[in-house]
Amino acid sequence: MALGEFDLIARYFKRPVARAALGVGDDCALLRLTPGQQLAVSTDLLVEGRHFLSTVAPERLGHKALAVNLSDLAAAGASPLAFTLSLSMPRAEERFLEPFAQGLLALAEAHGIELVGGDTTGGPVLCIGITVMGEVPPGQALLRSGARVGDEIWVSGSLGDARLALEAFRGSLSLPGEAFEQVRRAMECPSPRVALGLALRGLASAAIDLSDGLLGDLGHVLRASGVGAELAWEALPRSAILGVQSEAWQRACLLTGGDDYELLFTAPAAHHHQVLSSATMVQTPVHCVGQIVAAERGLVVTQNGAALDLQGLSAFDHFKS
Amino acid sequence: MALGEFDLIARYFKRPVARAALGVGDDCALLRLTPGQQLAVSTDLLVEGRHFLSTVAPERLGHKALAVNLSDLAAAGASPLAFTLSLSMPRAEERFLEPFAQGLLALAEAHGIELVGGDTTGGPVLCIGITVMGEVPPGQALLRSGARVGDEIWVSGSLGDARLALEAFRGSLSLPGEAFEQVRRAMECPSPRVALGLALRGLASAAIDLSDGLLGDLGHVLRASGVGAELAWEALPRSAILGVQSEAWQRACLLTGGDDYELLFTAPAAHHHQVLSSATMVQTPVHCVGQIVAAERGLVVTQNGAALDLQGLSAFDHFKS
Repeated sequence: MALGEFDLIARYFKRPVARAALGVGDDCALLRLTPGQQLAVSTDLLVEGRHFLSTVAPERLGHKALAVNLSDLAAAGASPLAFTLSLSMPRAEERFLEPFAQGLLALAEAHGIELVGGDTTGGPVLCIGITVMGEVPPGQALLRSGARVGDEIWVSGSLGDARLALEAFRGSLSLPGEAFEQVRRAMECPSPRVALGLALRGLASAAIDLSDGLLGDLGHVLRASGVGAELAWEALPRSAILGVQSEAWQRACLLTGGDDYELLFTAPAAHHHQVLSSATMVQTPVHCVGQIVAAERGLVVTQNGAALDLQGLSAFDHFKS
Repeated sequence: MALGEFDLIARYFKRPVARAALGVGDDCALLRLTPGQQLAVSTDLLVEGRHFLSTVAPERLGHKALAVNLSDLAAAGASPLAFTLSLSMPRAEERFLEPFAQGLLALAEAHGIELVGGDTTGGPVLCIGITVMGEVPPGQALLRSGARVGDEIWVSGSLGDARLALEAFRGSLSLPGEAFEQVRRAMECPSPRVALGLALRGLASAAIDLSDGLLGDLGHVLRASGVGAELAWEALPRSAILGVQSEAWQRACLLTGGDDYELLFTAPAAHHHQVLSSATMVQTPVHCVGQIVAAERGLVVTQNGAALDLQGLSAFDHFKS
């Protein structure tokens, strides 16, 4: 059954708002910020066939579309506040919209944030645009530019399962059913590390979320901070499923995988134990995987003390791939 | 020449930011709000073939993509602050991106606002998602819900030229070359009425921007306010070009045209002269086109004192058309 644009907004996405002064249904949403805080804003556009497969369950897609945006707030150490949603799709179908809205709004509720505005329109493929807003005290946001020589490099969770799932979908490798479901969940249902981002305020010197792959995203931090990095191959956290794949697949997935939505952050070595205890407080596993070195040394991954050859591995780029 | 995603952001869209604490190039942008103000947020997604024709000049498209968002802030009486941009497109081409960015950033500069974040990605057709942020003192935003019986109904500028241009593009009617260029400019280069929106704070009782056509958008105000309206056909402002078209085309363009991005607002009759003088101060023509009546009377358009038959005219809906 086809729904009109305004019916659609009202039926699936309009909710009473508590924190926002005015939500969906006027020309603008109005938001109250906590006095003295800065506004943190991030935006992501997900396109069918590029960022998600048409096989994904709508509920998971709704979850992921918001999760990747919350992940950006997490990387800034910002506290989520509200978000807007733009949807472009060939048809407005209830069987898609209802579970999509459920997945989206369940994650929103889990983080205490509200959908405050949106736009729905026709279009040849499904496109989901989300802009998320959060707040952070002035000077406390985690930036990419704060890494200093001697800082330790950390990542949360484990890396590479999303890429492994993508390769299994593509038929490049095969996985047992249960293993496939587990890595598929990593790809389709990432957990944005919002609580960790907040816990790292004042502890981490720099942070970024891992969306385009470890080497590429770490590269952004290194360029912004004017430093180099040495990563220990053995220390990179991987799931038991990824850990039994070939060395080549492990490298591809761990170093350039993308879509992990874990946090990569740096912190002075003196904060080592406090980082561990803060991460434990928010029930998020973190692993120290290397250290920041001088810019001249570039980006090196060592295995048994020798530098890995990183040629042929490159970060994902939407217009180069 | 194909550009990588990060080159593209840096080359065309990265600008030094003044007002924002941190602009394009980190996980989030950080913005300082004026203390005590509320944040106003609006988002719009423009899809090729739906919201614009592939024949539009990239510079005009850049202008329009931001203009339609600023128009939402204008309708709320909010002062523009910053915006984010998401672009999905088949190829990253300089011959498109350079003029597109020029048109977009020229309008941004004219309104003193900054591009603070974005996302670029591949996709089958050009999609442009913009989220615009502004600020407004608590309680002063213009809402759709404030119209009261006896209020006068006003519109800015003139209506219907964008629809006339669309029909000329479709071949439904033909226009002399110069006339075509003029209405085409109305369709492709709307002027968001930001200054008027600010001038109407404290004067207007309700406001909306005319994006989906007069009847449809006025209908939103009437529903939100729980009132009816009587419009005078003769009073609806139209260009000399539209004024010489057939009665049927005039009705279609003026009443359901869409894409005008003028403001429709209501104000107590006692504010009549102050509305006129405030509009003159910001050099924006406004016309009183009717009045708010009791909800039971619905929405009526009168011509020579008799109600027009509005059957067969309906507001544009992206999923019903």
